[in-house]
Amino acid sequence: MARRRQWLPALEWLRSYNGRFFTEDLLASVIVAIMLIPQSLAYALLAGLPAEMGLYASILPLLVYAFLGTSRVLSVGPVAVMSLMTAAALGPLGLSPSEYMVAAMTLAMIAGALLTTLGVLRLGFVANFMSHPVVTGFITASALIIALSQVQHLLGVSAHGYTLLELLPSLWESVRDINTLTAVLALPTLLWLFWSRKGVARVLTGMGVSRNSAVMIGRISPVVAVVVTTVVTWWLGLDQRGVATVGEVPTGLPHFTMPSFDPQVWRTLGGSAVLIATIGFVESISVAQGLAAKRRERVDPDQELVGLGAANMATSFFGGFPVAGGFSRSVVNFDAGAATPAAGLFAAVLMAVATLLFVPFLVYLPKATLAATIVAAVWSLVDLSILRHAWQYSRADFLAVFVTITLTLLMGVELGVASGVLVSLVVHLYKTSRPHVAEVGEVPGTEHFRNVNRHQVQTYETILSIRIDESLYFANTRYLEDIIYNMIAERPRLKHVILMCTAVNEVDMSALESLLEMNERLNELDIKLHLSEVKGPVMDRLEKGHLLSKLSGNVYLSQHQAVEALKNIT
Amino acid sequence: MARRRQWLPALEWLRSYNGRFFTEDLLASVIVAIMLIPQSLAYALLAGLPAEMGLYASILPLLVYAFLGTSRVLSVGPVAVMSLMTAAALGPLGLSPSEYMVAAMTLAMIAGALLTTLGVLRLGFVANFMSHPVVTGFITASALIIALSQVQHLLGVSAHGYTLLELLPSLWESVRDINTLTAVLALPTLLWLFWSRKGVARVLTGMGVSRNSAVMIGRISPVVAVVVTTVVTWWLGLDQRGVATVGEVPTGLPHFTMPSFDPQVWRTLGGSAVLIATIGFVESISVAQGLAAKRRERVDPDQELVGLGAANMATSFFGGFPVAGGFSRSVVNFDAGAATPAAGLFAAVLMAVATLLFVPFLVYLPKATLAATIVAAVWSLVDLSILRHAWQYSRADFLAVFVTITLTLLMGVELGVASGVLVSLVVHLYKTSRPHVAEVGEVPGTEHFRNVNRHQVQTYETILSIRIDESLYFANTRYLEDIIYNMIAERPRLKHVILMCTAVNEVDMSALESLLEMNERLNELDIKLHLSEVKGPVMDRLEKGHLLSKLSGNVYLSQHQAVEALKNIT
Repeated sequence: MARRRQWLPALEWLRSYNGRFFTEDLLASVIVAIMLIPQSLAYALLAGLPAEMGLYASILPLLVYAFLGTSRVLSVGPVAVMSLMTAAALGPLGLSPSEYMVAAMTLAMIAGALLTTLGVLRLGFVANFMSHPVVTGFITASALIIALSQVQHLLGVSAHGYTLLELLPSLWESVRDINTLTAVLALPTLLWLFWSRKGVARVLTGMGVSRNSAVMIGRISPVVAVVVTTVVTWWLGLDQRGVATVGEVPTGLPHFTMPSFDPQVWRTLGGSAVLIATIGFVESISVAQGLAAKRRERVDPDQELVGLGAANMATSFFGGFPVAGGFSRSVVNFDAGAATPAAGLFAAVLMAVATLLFVPFLVYLPKATLAATIVAAVWSLVDLSILRHAWQYSRADFLAVFVTITLTLLMGVELGVASGVLVSLVVHLYKTSRPHVAEVGEVPGTEHFRNVNRHQVQTYETILSIRIDESLYFANTRYLEDIIYNMIAERPRLKHVILMCTAVNEVDMSALESLLEMNERLNELDIKLHLSEVKGPVMDRLEKGHLLSKLSGNVYLSQHQAVEALKNIT
Repeated sequence: MARRRQWLPALEWLRSYNGRFFTEDLLASVIVAIMLIPQSLAYALLAGLPAEMGLYASILPLLVYAFLGTSRVLSVGPVAVMSLMTAAALGPLGLSPSEYMVAAMTLAMIAGALLTTLGVLRLGFVANFMSHPVVTGFITASALIIALSQVQHLLGVSAHGYTLLELLPSLWESVRDINTLTAVLALPTLLWLFWSRKGVARVLTGMGVSRNSAVMIGRISPVVAVVVTTVVTWWLGLDQRGVATVGEVPTGLPHFTMPSFDPQVWRTLGGSAVLIATIGFVESISVAQGLAAKRRERVDPDQELVGLGAANMATSFFGGFPVAGGFSRSVVNFDAGAATPAAGLFAAVLMAVATLLFVPFLVYLPKATLAATIVAAVWSLVDLSILRHAWQYSRADFLAVFVTITLTLLMGVELGVASGVLVSLVVHLYKTSRPHVAEVGEVPGTEHFRNVNRHQVQTYETILSIRIDESLYFANTRYLEDIIYNMIAERPRLKHVILMCTAVNEVDMSALESLLEMNERLNELDIKLHLSEVKGPVMDRLEKGHLLSKLSGNVYLSQHQAVEALKNIT
């Protein structure tokens, strides 16, 4: 039972479901669904797909995640950054519209399969490759690119590209083709969206509405923009006068469609899918963990991989594209009081109803309105202050942020995030590859050993005591050899080297080989190698690696014992 | 002056050069040069290049390294593994012979430029990415492939490929075309080479020759094989009867030729050049450091990068291909008593003389002899016991070895070594991503805190004391959040969380953000976050990151003080 509940977390909350939960979940789901309609349409367009695919991608993922996810409030569906990544992955391939749709579904399929596999194998830790500076830098740079890519729709012109270097010249060239009516419609929409985020709540609370309700009503301001601009467009016949609208869209629920299982296609899309999956997971787990902690609830990262993976695979069979747990939508769900994942389930039903009812009205919905929705949504993701904070905090972290932001803006999302991850790793290895190593001596009258450069301590010409403040592993063995051989080269009368291993939590095979070789080299020079204060698990390891049997010297329980035993032997 | 000597290490040994050094160096250089002649011809053929390029690649690198390198005995020139990598990188490109030559020179140019740049920037630590299991596994697998790739020359047939999957079927198909004369010539040559490695020394010492001289004479047995088989081939006219020989070769010293500087070519070869450069550097530095330690000498890894890089760049202008410090040749140089890098300089001159004198004799040198030389040389590199040792030592290291060997054999050298490095990194991140975290309590009557699961200790319902046994960085922040939030979810009466930071050597920006967020979340739950026993440098960092000013609780010097101060506050 415990095992079944582990793989199907819904069994947990379903057992205790009751009427109060139902009311709370239903209310939250209505608010979330209203907010999702324009968002999902907009993100589909951002991904380069027909608007209705956004609605399709909002139904099944919510449903599947409700049963398989461990977060009670995470809302899974199309999100801005993944839509941009989808567009950036597929745009350059030069596909026909129908090929493009299948490719988007296939991306969701590959990403979903990957996430599920990692989850089943309990390998969620791979998301740790994404450091905070890289994620923040990447999101900021992506948001800037997304906002810029929407300017064309706000002005009624056409531009292309997924980097600053492509978008800016392209926009510049098309600037004389601005459609005035579109721009006139877009400007107040944009202003409304930016103002309404805080303004509506302020006005309503001023009118005596409770703070909480006022914020909730404020959240649905994008829907107001959608309705008003659609009506205006229909009334004035703007769609006949150059204002681009979403247009005719097939009605009805999504039907079963196969993504591609052609190995050639998987090879082409594989790299992009890996990045999309990773970014999607990192975003989702951060949001889920943050919101769960607020209520003292738990999420299980490995099960989250399964939930998110299944959501992606499911939607890939019904005209969807890559999805993730969105920040703003989940926060709305949380604030609206969702008690259990059933809120997501109800929202899925409402989205299905919306798909059936509202699709005909999309004929008059201006693309500029959706573009404005996107700009307003992603603008809050832009956080350039991360550059300043990172600079103040550490140069290493700054380097990671800077590389990620710059390369994402100039060379595209995939190269940007991949380089960021690489830089974080290299910087980390660099730091641990030069561990603090100190020559130590005994503080007279005590059994304590301290750095010879900082304290007045007792040392002996024939003994070199070295304390290593880091685990020994492949990244630092060479540095350590270097330091120790250099110390030895300076001490002609040396007979004993004692490595004090207080801070050594691990010795990997590279370090073992290095110690074995050092032992042999020193022995040739008639110097004995000793160890002191070795931790239990490390001791077992060294035993297995035959270091202890080959060691020219001894292993001492304490550094003091070692020095006492060796100081009179020459 | 110190600075000039840093960049031109030759200034160091030139100042104290004397007659005794000269005699020792000259003797060593003669022995090394005799050994190098067949080796360099063979490795050029292995790289898919004309034999004379092996001689060319043995002259300038020795010369340049003598001035720029810091090892007194490292012998730089063509080595087996890099020749294989060169062939594997260029073979699939389908180049004409002259394009292939330029491409090989260009590989040396790119690899050299990269190494020099890293050296000048003092970035030698990047070689640490290569763990011992990966390097050993890679060398073993490469040696197997090299040996197998030479079987065709031993049998006088033709096969192709750089992996087991390509070579084995290819050899199988050509088995009926065996040239009996070639095989009859190759078999005794191979037996001689294998036997002579120890046999010659054994026989000679039996005859009263000193052990050292006997070993030295044994080293030149490949030259005996070359001379004998060349004479036999000429005498019996075997070259007219199907025995493939090196053939007509242009006489004279190498002349100035430009490698390619076409960006397109650099892009194509860049990835391979990075791997070749890394492997070359790791091999060279290991050999140099090992031999230097034997004589209490020093090598400077960053300056080694400069020396090796310059050697590669120099040879790329004179018909050479990627070179490195070879293990066997350097050991011979060391054993022969080379006192200073002048030994390399003299060897370079001798190689130049050899190029002028011996090239005409190559017409009758059977390729089978060179193939036998290669097989005998690489066979000593095969060390499959690494698999057993790694398995016994740790599963993580075994995984790295296994992936490296398997992928190198089946998918080729580049994919093999790249995957090995990736696996080492992932395994390392995995290990540090789950640091040991213990809830601790006070041992009654003392000020010591120990793990609650292992000791009888005093704890309080309102206080959670957590000791973290690892630095906090991006790979483990998420795991830590997970653990701590889970602990909190189980303790409804909790008021204080104290993180005991004894073992925390670093807090990177990801961890800082995580702590800031944890601080905020706990504060919302009315739980205060405290720190204890924070190291000085970490404290400074946290100050800069504004954690200390935002912390809901306090920072205590010791865990004992923290608990004493908090146990009565609820």
